[in-house]
Amino acid sequence: MAGRKVLIVYAHQEPNSFNGSLKTVAVEELSKQGCSVTVSDLYAMQFEPRATRNDIVGCLHNSDNFSYAVEATEAYKRGCLSNDLIEEQKKVQEADLLIFQFPLYWFSMPAIMKGWMDRVLVQGFAHDFPMCYDTDMSDFMSGDIRYILWPMQHGIMHFCGVKVLEPHICFAPEHVSEEKRKEMLIAWAQRLKTLWKEEPINCSAEWYFK
Amino acid sequence: MAGRKVLIVYAHQEPNSFNGSLKTVAVEELSKQGCSVTVSDLYAMQFEPRATRNDIVGCLHNSDNFSYAVEATEAYKRGCLSNDLIEEQKKVQEADLLIFQFPLYWFSMPAIMKGWMDRVLVQGFAHDFPMCYDTDMSDFMSGDIRYILWPMQHGIMHFCGVKVLEPHICFAPEHVSEEKRKEMLIAWAQRLKTLWKEEPINCSAEWYFK
Ligand SMILES: Cc1cc2nc3c(=O)[nH]c(=O)nc-3n(C[C@H](O)[C@H](O)[C@@H](O)COP(=O)(O)OP(=O)(O)OC[C@H]3O[C@@H](n4cnc5c(N)ncnc54)[C@H](O)[C@@H]3O)c2cc1C
Ligand SMILES: Cc1cc2nc3c(=O)[nH]c(=O)nc-3n(C[C@H](O)[C@H](O)[C@@H](O)COP(=O)(O)OP(=O)(O)OC[C@H]3O[C@@H](n4cnc5c(N)ncnc54)[C@H](O)[C@@H]3O)c2cc1C
Ligand SMILES: [Zn+2]
Ligand SMILES: [Zn+2]
Repeated sequence: MAGRKVLIVYAHQEPNSFNGSLKTVAVEELSKQGCSVTVSDLYAMQFEPRATRNDIVGCLHNSDNFSYAVEATEAYKRGCLSNDLIEEQKKVQEADLLIFQFPLYWFSMPAIMKGWMDRVLVQGFAHDFPMCYDTDMSDFMSGDIRYILWPMQHGIMHFCGVKVLEPHICFAPEHVSEEKRKEMLIAWAQRLKTLWKEEPINCSAEWYFK
Repeated sequence: MAGRKVLIVYAHQEPNSFNGSLKTVAVEELSKQGCSVTVSDLYAMQFEPRATRNDIVGCLHNSDNFSYAVEATEAYKRGCLSNDLIEEQKKVQEADLLIFQFPLYWFSMPAIMKGWMDRVLVQGFAHDFPMCYDTDMSDFMSGDIRYILWPMQHGIMHFCGVKVLEPHICFAPEHVSEEKRKEMLIAWAQRLKTLWKEEPINCSAEWYFK
């Protein structure tokens, strides 16, 4: 629609690819409509996917125990995120429509685009709540935790012929007591003692979705 | 178990983190059992998550239209993958047990670990079939395509308050005819004409899992 702003976040190495053609089609059609279209061409930008200390300009909130979630949130508040992130956030903020154009890699998006999600969608900017299972968000997260294991365990490991054991999940370690955390670590060590005797799960759709 | 080999693929920036402690617990317990434990500490290694032309040493199979899947498979056969990939593949090959230690980032693994999956698990090495919906694999992939959209659409976009439209999926463009591909591109352009009038999907567990 005329006057609307569109951001296409695009992840393909090759302009002549089918993904490249889909992106071009979108730019052309939306421009024809009078939209102003911006493309974040992640490979061409050599977009950084790794969430590291480099994303925070200047001093850290707590450099003894680097927490990316905490540091990025604080840096966002203080306007101290790295420039590449500020640029992307501006584009997102202005956009009426976001299009993510990518080939499926392992039941999910390519790492370079996952890095865009991890780094650009900082708490405070893109959402207000810390993300974690086992808190206020439990309703939203209501999806069984197994739903999100499907792409990783079944899509990747089972596909490659790896036998999959039960996942070992520590819920929201940053939101529980020190004592509870110690217990979680002991439970993990305990499990490892007998891990070799465990039977693999029956890694089929039933296990994940009942 | 004594003599067994374990590979821990570990993705946290901070040794003092809870993830770091879980990793340490595993190294200690498994070493005590007499296992030989290798850790791929992805952030410390500054592991490259981006799947690019740099992963192939020397000439490309088809440099006019770079296909990562094709080039990586060919390079694996010829022993021409980049050294960091060969190293990781050796570790995987020798391992009796793989442990992936990571914090959940957006209903999935951090980008740096997703990059490990994208780049290390090359066809020919980790699996024999090209991966795609709509072929022989359809049985394995039997999971509804919507299952894998849950982490991306609901976990990321809906969580951030974005209204989600129907995804637009082109199945296996590399396995269909040129004509079919042209049709796919036209269909996408066609959809974009009226995209602005579309109603968002009802992005709840029901939509994804019925
Ligand atoms: C981009 C991004 C996306 C996210 N998406 C999600 C999501 O989709 N779902 C979700 O649930 N969460 C999500 N999170 C939250 C994330 O999974 C957690 O914050 C995770 O990082 C916690 O693990 P940690 O190792 O970093 O914990 P830390 O913050 O390092 O640890 C918690 C506490 O444990 C303490 N600790 C460390 N070692 C020990 C020990 N030996 N004994 C006792 N205490 C110890 C630490 O000092 C710290 O106080 C996301 C975070 C980010 C940054
Ligand atoms: C690490 C990895 C993991 C993967 N995991 C999965 C998975 O989990 N599930 C899955 O289904 N797939 C998976 N795949 C496959 C992947 O999704 C596809 O190969 C995808 O990349 C195809 O899109 P493309 O743009 O690269 O196609 P291309 O190979 O670029 O395109 C296919 C054909 O379209 C042609 N073409 C380009 N433009 C046009 C045009 N304008 N008109 C007509 N033809 C045109 C090209 O020349 C080419 O011949 C994976 C691939 C990799 C590398
Ligand atoms: Zn499975
Ligand atoms: Zn939703």
